[in-house]
Amino acid sequence: MEVTSITSTQNAQVKAMVALQQKSAERRRTGLFVVEGARELSHCIDAKMQIERVFVCWDIAGRETEFLLQQTQPPHVMEVTKEVYEKIAYRGGTEGVMAVVRGRNLKLEDLKLNANPLLMIVERVEKPGNLGAILRSADAAGADAVIICDALTDLYNPNLIRSAIGAVFTVPCVICESKECIAFLKDRKIQILTAQLQDSSLYYHTDMRGGTAIVMGTEATGLTDMWRQAADAHIRIPMLGKLDSLNVSVSAAVLLFEAVRQRNESRH
Amino acid sequence: MEVTSITSTQNAQVKAMVALQQKSAERRRTGLFVVEGARELSHCIDAKMQIERVFVCWDIAGRETEFLLQQTQPPHVMEVTKEVYEKIAYRGGTEGVMAVVRGRNLKLEDLKLNANPLLMIVERVEKPGNLGAILRSADAAGADAVIICDALTDLYNPNLIRSAIGAVFTVPCVICESKECIAFLKDRKIQILTAQLQDSSLYYHTDMRGGTAIVMGTEATGLTDMWRQAADAHIRIPMLGKLDSLNVSVSAAVLLFEAVRQRNESRH
Repeated sequence: MEVTSITSTQNAQVKAMVALQQKSAERRRTGLFVVEGARELSHCIDAKMQIERVFVCWDIAGRETEFLLQQTQPPHVMEVTKEVYEKIAYRGGTEGVMAVVRGRNLKLEDLKLNANPLLMIVERVEKPGNLGAILRSADAAGADAVIICDALTDLYNPNLIRSAIGAVFTVPCVICESKECIAFLKDRKIQILTAQLQDSSLYYHTDMRGGTAIVMGTEATGLTDMWRQAADAHIRIPMLGKLDSLNVSVSAAVLLFEAVRQRNESRH
Repeated sequence: MEVTSITSTQNAQVKAMVALQQKSAERRRTGLFVVEGARELSHCIDAKMQIERVFVCWDIAGRETEFLLQQTQPPHVMEVTKEVYEKIAYRGGTEGVMAVVRGRNLKLEDLKLNANPLLMIVERVEKPGNLGAILRSADAAGADAVIICDALTDLYNPNLIRSAIGAVFTVPCVICESKECIAFLKDRKIQILTAQLQDSSLYYHTDMRGGTAIVMGTEATGLTDMWRQAADAHIRIPMLGKLDSLNVSVSAAVLLFEAVRQRNESRH
C-alpha cells in the first residue's frame, strides 16, 4: 500500500478527481468513477468492486475509515488536506474518505438469473436521481437486475450513486440497447410487462409469478413503440387522484412489490 | 384588477417575496406562501385557494399565463422586469408567473371523510422533498387526506410544493400533534396501521378495506412509541435486498396502493 501526501489543489490527481466527478465523458474514457463516504465505500467493497486509489482527509475521517482501509488494502492511498478534500468532494458530510473505482460494465450475458427472475427495465429515463431511487427499490424488492436501455445518463453519475444509497453496488445493472434487451428477454421466455396508461390492464390483475420483466419509460413521454409492441401485457397503476401522474421510481416500486406479494402468496 | 409595474429589485414587494420564499417564519407570520409556474398556479386556482397577488414577467410569460390571469382575476397584478423576476423566482423555467397565496390551514375537524377513509399519516418527516412526494402518491392513490404530525417543515416550503407537483393543492392536508391525531382516529374507529420493521406482519396480510390510517415515521428513527402503542396492527414491507432500506415516500406509495388493490378486489 503506497501512501502519498497531497497538499496542493493544483495537483494532477486532484484535477483528475474533479474531472471524474463532473464529466461523464471522462468516466467513459477512463472506465473509472468516484465513490464518496464510508457507507458507500463499504457497500462497494462488499460488492468486490476494484478500488484503484483512496483519498483520505484525516482531519475529517474517523475510526470507521481506518478500519475500511485495513479491510480494503487499496494499492494507493492519498492523504489530503482539508482544502484539497473540499475541492474533490461532491457532497458534504462524507466522513473524509473517497475512492476511485473501476466500473463493472456488466453485459446481459453476464447476468446470473434465477429460475423465475424479476427484472426492472427502464427506457431512456433521464434523471440520475430517479434511476438511483429505482435501484434502491429494486434492491429492497430483491429484483435480479436492473437493465437501463438507451441510457441518457451513465451508471456512475454522482447524483445516481448518491440517491441509490449503495444499491448501485448491490444490484446487478446492465446498460444496453432496447433491441438487444428485447431479444434477450424473448430468448429466455421472460414475460415483458410494459407500464402504460393507455390500452392496459390493472397491474394487480396481471400474473407476475413467472419470469417477469417490468418495463418503465420516461415520465414525460412514456415508452417507445418498440417496447409496447414487444410486450406480453400492458399494465397500469390506477390514477385515482386529480393529477394523473406518479413519480417513475415510485411506480417502479409499486409494481415490483406487487410481484413480491404475488410470489409470496403463491407459496402458501 | 389593479396593475402595478415593478422595475427595481429593491422594491418592498420584491423583498417581501424573497422573505416568503426563504423563511418559514415569514410564511407562518403572514399566513402567505408563494406558488411558481403556470401549472402549479392552475392547480391552485382549481383548488379555490385565495390568491392575493400575481407577479408576471411578460418577457417570459406566454398565452397560458394570460389565460390564467383572465380566469383568476387576482386583486393585484405586478408586472416585473426579467431582472426582478429572476430575483424572486426560486427555480428556473417557471413560465414567468408567480403568485402570493393564502395558506389553508385545515384542521382535523375540517376533513370531509368517506365512509371507509384511507389516510396517510406522517410523523416528524423532515425533508420537504419527501413530504411532497408522499402528497403526490396520496393524490394518485385517491387518499382522503394526508396528516402531518409534529411537523418539522411547513406545508408551503418551496421544495415541498415543487416535489408535490400540485398535490399540495389537490390533497387535503392537516398539520397537527400526534396526540390530537390519535384521538381523532380512535374516535372515528379508523384502524391505525404503523409501518415498522420490528414486531410486525407483512403489509399484504393486513386487511385495509375498512377505514384505515397508514402511519410512517422518519427514515432515520422510525415512529415514536406513542404511535406504536396506539396501533391496531404493525405492518412492514419485506426487505429482500442487501440494504434494508426504502425511501419513505416509496414505502408510503407501496402501502397506499396495497389498500387500493384490496378495496378494488373486494368489489369483484
